[in-house]
Amino acid sequence: MSSSFYPARRILMGPGPSDVSPRVLGAMARPTIGHLDPQFVDLMDQIKALLQYAFRTDNALTLPVSAPGSAGMEACFVNLVRPGDTVIVCQNGVFGGRMKENVERCGATAVMVEDPWGQTVSVEKVEQALAENGDASVLAFVHAETSTGAFSDAAALCRLATSHNVLSIVDTVTSLGGIELDVDAWGADAVYSGTQKCLSCVPGLSPVTFSERAVARIRERDSKVQSWFLDMQLVMGYWGENSKRAYHHTAPVNTLYALHEALLILKEEGLENAWRRHRLHHTALVAGLEAMGLGLVVAPEWRLPQLNSVSVPAGVDEALVRSRLLQDYGLEIGAGLGALAGKVWRVGLMGHAANRQNVVLCLGALEQTLSSMQAPIERDRALAAALAVYDD
Amino acid sequence: MSSSFYPARRILMGPGPSDVSPRVLGAMARPTIGHLDPQFVDLMDQIKALLQYAFRTDNALTLPVSAPGSAGMEACFVNLVRPGDTVIVCQNGVFGGRMKENVERCGATAVMVEDPWGQTVSVEKVEQALAENGDASVLAFVHAETSTGAFSDAAALCRLATSHNVLSIVDTVTSLGGIELDVDAWGADAVYSGTQKCLSCVPGLSPVTFSERAVARIRERDSKVQSWFLDMQLVMGYWGENSKRAYHHTAPVNTLYALHEALLILKEEGLENAWRRHRLHHTALVAGLEAMGLGLVVAPEWRLPQLNSVSVPAGVDEALVRSRLLQDYGLEIGAGLGALAGKVWRVGLMGHAANRQNVVLCLGALEQTLSSMQAPIERDRALAAALAVYDD
Repeated sequence: MSSSFYPARRILMGPGPSDVSPRVLGAMARPTIGHLDPQFVDLMDQIKALLQYAFRTDNALTLPVSAPGSAGMEACFVNLVRPGDTVIVCQNGVFGGRMKENVERCGATAVMVEDPWGQTVSVEKVEQALAENGDASVLAFVHAETSTGAFSDAAALCRLATSHNVLSIVDTVTSLGGIELDVDAWGADAVYSGTQKCLSCVPGLSPVTFSERAVARIRERDSKVQSWFLDMQLVMGYWGENSKRAYHHTAPVNTLYALHEALLILKEEGLENAWRRHRLHHTALVAGLEAMGLGLVVAPEWRLPQLNSVSVPAGVDEALVRSRLLQDYGLEIGAGLGALAGKVWRVGLMGHAANRQNVVLCLGALEQTLSSMQAPIERDRALAAALAVYDD
Repeated sequence: MSSSFYPARRILMGPGPSDVSPRVLGAMARPTIGHLDPQFVDLMDQIKALLQYAFRTDNALTLPVSAPGSAGMEACFVNLVRPGDTVIVCQNGVFGGRMKENVERCGATAVMVEDPWGQTVSVEKVEQALAENGDASVLAFVHAETSTGAFSDAAALCRLATSHNVLSIVDTVTSLGGIELDVDAWGADAVYSGTQKCLSCVPGLSPVTFSERAVARIRERDSKVQSWFLDMQLVMGYWGENSKRAYHHTAPVNTLYALHEALLILKEEGLENAWRRHRLHHTALVAGLEAMGLGLVVAPEWRLPQLNSVSVPAGVDEALVRSRLLQDYGLEIGAGLGALAGKVWRVGLMGHAANRQNVVLCLGALEQTLSSMQAPIERDRALAAALAVYDD
């Protein structure tokens, strides 16, 4: 208890947090200033503009919620879902289930559209659910399921929502900065994300953005939002137009320094370049894994480059593998969650961690560790297969 | 938008955030590791033990909520207050009003016990309210009102709650680490605080602690807590006994490094020494202010040493004074809030910022600034009066 904490050297290739750039860590360590300081208010404006860039939106109500992604999810639900509403919730992994919890805790009814874990959300089933539930007011789905590594067709799902005159709530925790995400082109209404995935920022904030339709729904509510902390009508007073900036809560000043720097890095690289980089290193990683004889859970067309669910070979103690990777290589990969617990490893290539060194390290460390446990894998092939991708 | 953010040099003597120690900033900048990493789980145990020390409690359910103090407040209310409950809420400043908002958003009824802003909560009125409201299930009050600088008799109020068999919810955002706070001796049931006041940590976390009575109330609820993110039954699965550590949300890893370091510093100094230090510098500051002819809003027996509400002299543009202090001296002091807006400055002496340099700087800067505006103050007396306190 009595000494300062010095973390061991880790390479973070799990489902997040991902490796954080020294630039971001350095920014966060700059001296704290007041949350109403004019200089800080300027920084807030810059963060808002950078988030609009990352989300590809002109939405005025775009800001980081002062808490992790789960709170960003809750911010979307408690503001848009009223007691008695019907909400169509798509579930193909853990986070759809968490959406259902949110709906029910708002006093609303969740109509579930379920797909197997690891598959994409079925657009047809959603269309049917919308047709069968004319009273639905919201459609909620996960763009990039962190628990499985599958993405869904957000453009098509948002289009369905708009054409049925319901609002869409979209979880982009793992997609922001990693794959194509286009809030305005999709016509998405309430979108939340996290900082510790493809933005390679520290965990603790949840970027959100609300369309004008969503803001109108919030303004016309006749019941108060059940959360004071997440009530966007109040939060807008602090994050809204420059002139007001009324105190609501004390912003997490230093974590916002970190987010600003992480977003700058993204903008310097360019959003499309970042997407391409994730795709490239994913392709190399998968080539190596497949050459080793390891399979992926998700079908190629719906694979998230930034989150790879790898099937654990029969007879292998998956927890022991993770623990050896951590101990021998300082390498963190993730365990399976929910229906995939014990069956997969989740290998992240998120943000700053999506690089060639990490791909090579991960393949080498996995091959050595599995070999030492007599797992049924192909040896001495993975590295060449991965490197061939880079040579293309 | 296109360049890194470098904050100006500030001395933070407002209502928080307070000056953060370089040790804390340095800790926060260490590389991020996973929120389920065994090394991080050890750190969580250390943080819990250090928070128990700071709160003076053996409560097992003691942890930092992953969001600012307002979320800690909400965590206490949504877990302990059920729809239809009656809650007695004491208000003598801004934060009692926020408690009322929380109660009502839980679908419960708030019975208000009001005292003038700047005064202590009347124990007699609370006793009467408890006697008149036999169906009340919770008594909520603010120990240290950040909006006014008055503290209340938490021991007596918690005793009343216990004797009437209601749970107490206590706001200690500004008191933790600054004045006597004794959760177990008081028999307080749910207590929340913030990190950016007398702990001199960055903003963004809210330490909370729940008594066994409070935990029993949570466990026996027959309705779900309306917030998924703040549901203590779920949060316990992550922060609870070492063996489980089930994923709930991604903890704000680096901010927790910072909290750990800030709590270590508090423990190294010793809680009672920290209280004495706040008292000493407050006494010096007040001696200087009074020698200058400036009065304090709160009666001496209820003054918080860490938050001094100073009456703005007649005819002085209080916002201009704050803006000059910021510009000419890098010195931040706070504006009045709510009923005291425009009438007071709030001068903080919180945590690391409670030191002799800050007292001298604040007095000198205020005297020069007010003199330059022809304000009716006594000159050339404040510094000697303050220093005499240190010489005693």
